[in-house]
Amino acid sequence: MRAPSHGSPAVILFSGGLDSTTCLAQARADGHRCHALSFDYGQRHTAELTAARHIAASAGVAEHKCVRIDFDGMGGSALTDARIDVPEAPSEGIPSTYVPARNTLFLSVALGWAEILEADAIYIGVNAVDYSGYPDCRPEFIAAFEKLARLATKAGAEDGHRFAIRTPLIDLSKADIIRKGTALGVDYSQTVSCYQADDRGRACGVCDACRLRRKGFEDAAIADPTRYWTGD
Amino acid sequence: MRAPSHGSPAVILFSGGLDSTTCLAQARADGHRCHALSFDYGQRHTAELTAARHIAASAGVAEHKCVRIDFDGMGGSALTDARIDVPEAPSEGIPSTYVPARNTLFLSVALGWAEILEADAIYIGVNAVDYSGYPDCRPEFIAAFEKLARLATKAGAEDGHRFAIRTPLIDLSKADIIRKGTALGVDYSQTVSCYQADDRGRACGVCDACRLRRKGFEDAAIADPTRYWTGD
Repeated sequence: MRAPSHGSPAVILFSGGLDSTTCLAQARADGHRCHALSFDYGQRHTAELTAARHIAASAGVAEHKCVRIDFDGMGGSALTDARIDVPEAPSEGIPSTYVPARNTLFLSVALGWAEILEADAIYIGVNAVDYSGYPDCRPEFIAAFEKLARLATKAGAEDGHRFAIRTPLIDLSKADIIRKGTALGVDYSQTVSCYQADDRGRACGVCDACRLRRKGFEDAAIADPTRYWTGD
Repeated sequence: MRAPSHGSPAVILFSGGLDSTTCLAQARADGHRCHALSFDYGQRHTAELTAARHIAASAGVAEHKCVRIDFDGMGGSALTDARIDVPEAPSEGIPSTYVPARNTLFLSVALGWAEILEADAIYIGVNAVDYSGYPDCRPEFIAAFEKLARLATKAGAEDGHRFAIRTPLIDLSKADIIRKGTALGVDYSQTVSCYQADDRGRACGVCDACRLRRKGFEDAAIADPTRYWTGD
């Protein structure tokens, strides 16, 4: 991996969750000027976006944009379609919280912004270890997108510019991610991972995301600062 | 190219312009049930979207969705940033109407919808002959996206499903596109190509898109039905 030049811009896909907040901390530690990118696409957990705004502000990012996408009723995922229940127990295969082609879409917008900013790196907090079975979290997907990025852009076509897709969490367990972020000074009490957090950002404790997160703190032997509905 | 099964769903990227309207006609001729997909992303020529709605309705598509994207002020193109002028004379290299990573983004949304619909084809009216120099209109870009689509999706990961990206116009001159569409019964008077059409859909006659279109009708020796501001 090339070392980033100090202060060079990078786009960080940033949801306000545990993984992307760790990813942002890593991009800062790598010396980048950080441009955080969030999406509001009708996902159920808008508390995550509120958390994203607070964390981005306190992390001193250069800029934080929230791109709003209205899918005109396409549906297709428990996260965007209120008629589909969020699963509260482990399931076989790819779960109903999968949003079709979501990382492809997020990376596409990040790529457009990276081209405008003349950034050479895009950070995404995908993880292929403790992940929920999403196809677009795999290393082969990331490699294919990196190749596409060179072909898709003016900077790539005219100047041979390469956009590096950085995945600092891809090989880490949830416990390792938490250890890494803690070492980088992340305050995880601010982050929201739950698929059905309430409007105060408190977690349900039972969805896939909550279960993975809770186990991560246990395995890391670090006190879990998550606020749960049931914790009152 | 595999023949599509009759009545199988296809997603058609559809702006209401000359190329995408021809592409839609081709998808219908190929026997697909057509799901037309437009975008409202703050582009200057909203007359194109009005045209898209009318054409989709009269072409008998199964469904027409318009996905709205608010880029939160990212800018970067003459088409989305009012501070950048639309060029009215040919320019060297990639012109200022280039929208960073636009086709990657459009194809990503189309891919998500195709997965929900269980469609096996996505049509896009890119053209590498009379094109305006955009990198994401080249065959190598399309091939890279097709590869990505298999890796990015649940259908690709679990079942080896392949999403074909169909580019029926890619090798055609503008005159050939017009000949093809005319043979397929397209009424080009309804289509809007101009980058700065007025709110009645009338074209400026001088932008890149207008110049290419006008020359196409001349070369095809087909009467140009385009309505120009200056034509009154």
